[in-house]
Amino acid sequence: MNDHVYKSIELTGSSEIGIEDAVQNALTKASESVKNMHWFQVTETRGHIVDDKVAHWQVSIKVGFTIE
Amino acid sequence: MNDHVYKSIELTGSSEIGIEDAVQNALTKASESVKNMHWFQVTETRGHIVDDKVAHWQVSIKVGFTIE
Amino acid sequence: MNDHVYKSIELTGSSEIGIEDAVQNALTKASESVKNMHWFQVTETRGHIVDDKVAHWQVSIKVGFTIE
Amino acid sequence: MNDHVYKSIELTGSSEIGIEDAVQNALTKASESVKNMHWFQVTETRGHIVDDKVAHWQVSIKVGFTIE
Amino acid sequence: MNDHVYKSIELTGSSEIGIEDAVQNALTKASESVKNMHWFQVTETRGHIVDDKVAHWQVSIKVGFTIE
Amino acid sequence: MNDHVYKSIELTGSSEIGIEDAVQNALTKASESVKNMHWFQVTETRGHIVDDKVAHWQVSIKVGFTIE
Amino acid sequence: MNDHVYKSIELTGSSEIGIEDAVQNALTKASESVKNMHWFQVTETRGHIVDDKVAHWQVSIKVGFTIE
Amino acid sequence: MNDHVYKSIELTGSSEIGIEDAVQNALTKASESVKNMHWFQVTETRGHIVDDKVAHWQVSIKVGFTIE
Amino acid sequence: MNDHVYKSIELTGSSEIGIEDAVQNALTKASESVKNMHWFQVTETRGHIVDDKVAHWQVSIKVGFTIE
Amino acid sequence: MNDHVYKSIELTGSSEIGIEDAVQNALTKASESVKNMHWFQVTETRGHIVDDKVAHWQVSIKVGFTIE
Amino acid sequence: MNDHVYKSIELTGSSEIGIEDAVQNALTKASESVKNMHWFQVTETRGHIVDDKVAHWQVSIKVGFTIE
Amino acid sequence: MNDHVYKSIELTGSSEIGIEDAVQNALTKASESVKNMHWFQVTETRGHIVDDKVAHWQVSIKVGFTIE
Repeated sequence: MNDHVYKSIELTGSSEIGIEDAVQNALTKASESVKNMHWFQVTETRGHIVDDKVAHWQVSIKVGFTIE
Repeated sequence: MNDHVYKSIELTGSSEIGIEDAVQNALTKASESVKNMHWFQVTETRGHIVDDKVAHWQVSIKVGFTIE
Repeated sequence: MNDHVYKSIELTGSSEIGIEDAVQNALTKASESVKNMHWFQVTETRGHIVDDKVAHWQVSIKVGFTIE
Repeated sequence: MNDHVYKSIELTGSSEIGIEDAVQNALTKASESVKNMHWFQVTETRGHIVDDKVAHWQVSIKVGFTIE
Repeated sequence: MNDHVYKSIELTGSSEIGIEDAVQNALTKASESVKNMHWFQVTETRGHIVDDKVAHWQVSIKVGFTIE
Repeated sequence: MNDHVYKSIELTGSSEIGIEDAVQNALTKASESVKNMHWFQVTETRGHIVDDKVAHWQVSIKVGFTIE
Repeated sequence: MNDHVYKSIELTGSSEIGIEDAVQNALTKASESVKNMHWFQVTETRGHIVDDKVAHWQVSIKVGFTIE
Repeated sequence: MNDHVYKSIELTGSSEIGIEDAVQNALTKASESVKNMHWFQVTETRGHIVDDKVAHWQVSIKVGFTIE
Repeated sequence: MNDHVYKSIELTGSSEIGIEDAVQNALTKASESVKNMHWFQVTETRGHIVDDKVAHWQVSIKVGFTIE
Repeated sequence: MNDHVYKSIELTGSSEIGIEDAVQNALTKASESVKNMHWFQVTETRGHIVDDKVAHWQVSIKVGFTIE
Repeated sequence: MNDHVYKSIELTGSSEIGIEDAVQNALTKASESVKNMHWFQVTETRGHIVDDKVAHWQVSIKVGFTIE
Repeated sequence: MNDHVYKSIELTGSSEIGIEDAVQNALTKASESVKNMHWFQVTETRGHIVDDKVAHWQVSIKVGFTIE
């Protein structure tokens, strides 16, 4: 692993279901243009409220991928 | 949205089920006295342990609402 | 509670399911050698990605227990 | 000053003009219900973008006032 | 404890004597309008200097209380 | 808004006039290659000094835009 | 001192009297199992409130000791 | 630039007009005794409130200058 | 107060008695060379341990004074 | 320099030798696709351990480059 | 890797040579009592000065190891 | 050591060789005007890039010295 160089980008995914689903949604969308994603780190967890209920979760993540 | 003024308050909700449920519990209780809640941000996730198991989750959030 | 002294340790648990399960896995493993665990605080939420999907979650926690 | 107790609240004001105006807008609105405001501290500066331009600034402040 | 919702507020108390007294002064004043205070956390310790001496201590705390 | 995925990038703009102008300069330049910018957050405010005067302001921002 | 290796642990002591006493209580309890403690750093100061009074202080410290 | 050693000091300037003016006021005053100031970084933005209006801004900066 | 410029310096005082005394010791020593000290902020609280007891407290403070 | 706009990206380089070499490895790899790199800032220093030895260093940096 | 539980401890190693050597010294000493160390993260870099020279470096690290 | 008062200053040294050398360069320069330096702490590690190579390292340190 020691001859790799990683680049990290920051994404925010959202979901009506919860935190885990919001992260997966961000990864699914990013995978259309980013290859070789290896790890992520949650940097912020927020959400919107409609009628006193969590309408959707918004989770920001840093995602690391190898530069080929 | 640019003529609004928001106030933020900090709440801690708890749940035996998980993080998302603890947040919703805080919002449900707060809605009895606070109107126009628009967004929240998770600031801390803690919990109590009983017999080596998570007995309940305690999630602190900042909640923003418009001042009418 | 005011005559207790707590010690805190930092653990990282993992799970294919989600954040709550990763925390419980860390507590279950730690309970083999640590007694009197009372509370925890989530300090970091990360994960590994395989084929553009969250392969497993890795959640770090501080765990407090009383020194007997 | 040493016999006073202060309470701090967090507000977010907005303005199309700039940071200073957004802070004043928050104070003007808050003054309708809060008396004896003495100081503030900027905690976050954000904004919305429309057509590649700053549409309005959103500045969050902590405001301290004496409890009578 | 897991069916409670807490609200946190931020106060600053002062005292010519020291840190502990400044915290108690803040709690005493707040108790006139806030009920069910359960815990506090010190967030900042400052003070004013007059003639090269600490004239009074100013200690900021977050105070948590249950919402009935 | 809950089916969007945002990406955030970090930019630093500069201006001889002030903070607001430095942010707009960064957005104007970035708009040549980035579409759908929605919000920004100021992360750092610095500047260069020439002859004891602020020669220009350098303001760093995180900018969020939707991934199409 | 440059051929020593230190290990740090985190403790929380409590006291009805004040901050300094809570720290000493943590050290006294820890000394039953930890030798060669050299320094500490206060990481958090909290407390419990009963009847609007500080019932006891809870002070968390990092304690460094040499590994023999 | 690589054979220079910088020293940083922290200043707080104030102004009735705004943030930029408060920074320049700090630099102007400091220039009476400090030479070779090269850069600054804003570390805190506060202000005093009189009659619900920002009476003056107080901006803290770190200023770096070369040691001759 | 808005035509003043403050400079902040960082000091560490120590005391066998406690935190408040360590702060006063730092101010007393600093007053030999610094005039017009107005406020301080505690930035770190540490201490040395001898024979499982707090031998002395070391408290670091930022001190602000006006530049004449 | 005041008419430039910088973009910052985050990279992680690794090396069996040490911190400086890991940073240079990240820059060498990044230079294949990024032009006009001007400065970097170390944001995290980690490493992997094999047989109780540092097998390789992993250093994360923010790199700033001008947008042409 | 997802069925492992890690524990993290904090160590400080020192060296007259440099940062990398101080880290290795901490790992070598810790390996006498800790098995299965996998990664570390540098948390603080300090040093002592004697006669205006760095007498030795003191580097603090968090070290993660699997609980068997 | 408990009757000493320390003052801390912040310096930035640079070097084409590496981090350790940049710190020593800062201390050597500072020793021309500062006496009794006892310890330092690294607060930031940056560098300039020329032709895709680290041209020089810039390391910022806090340095503590006793006030005589």
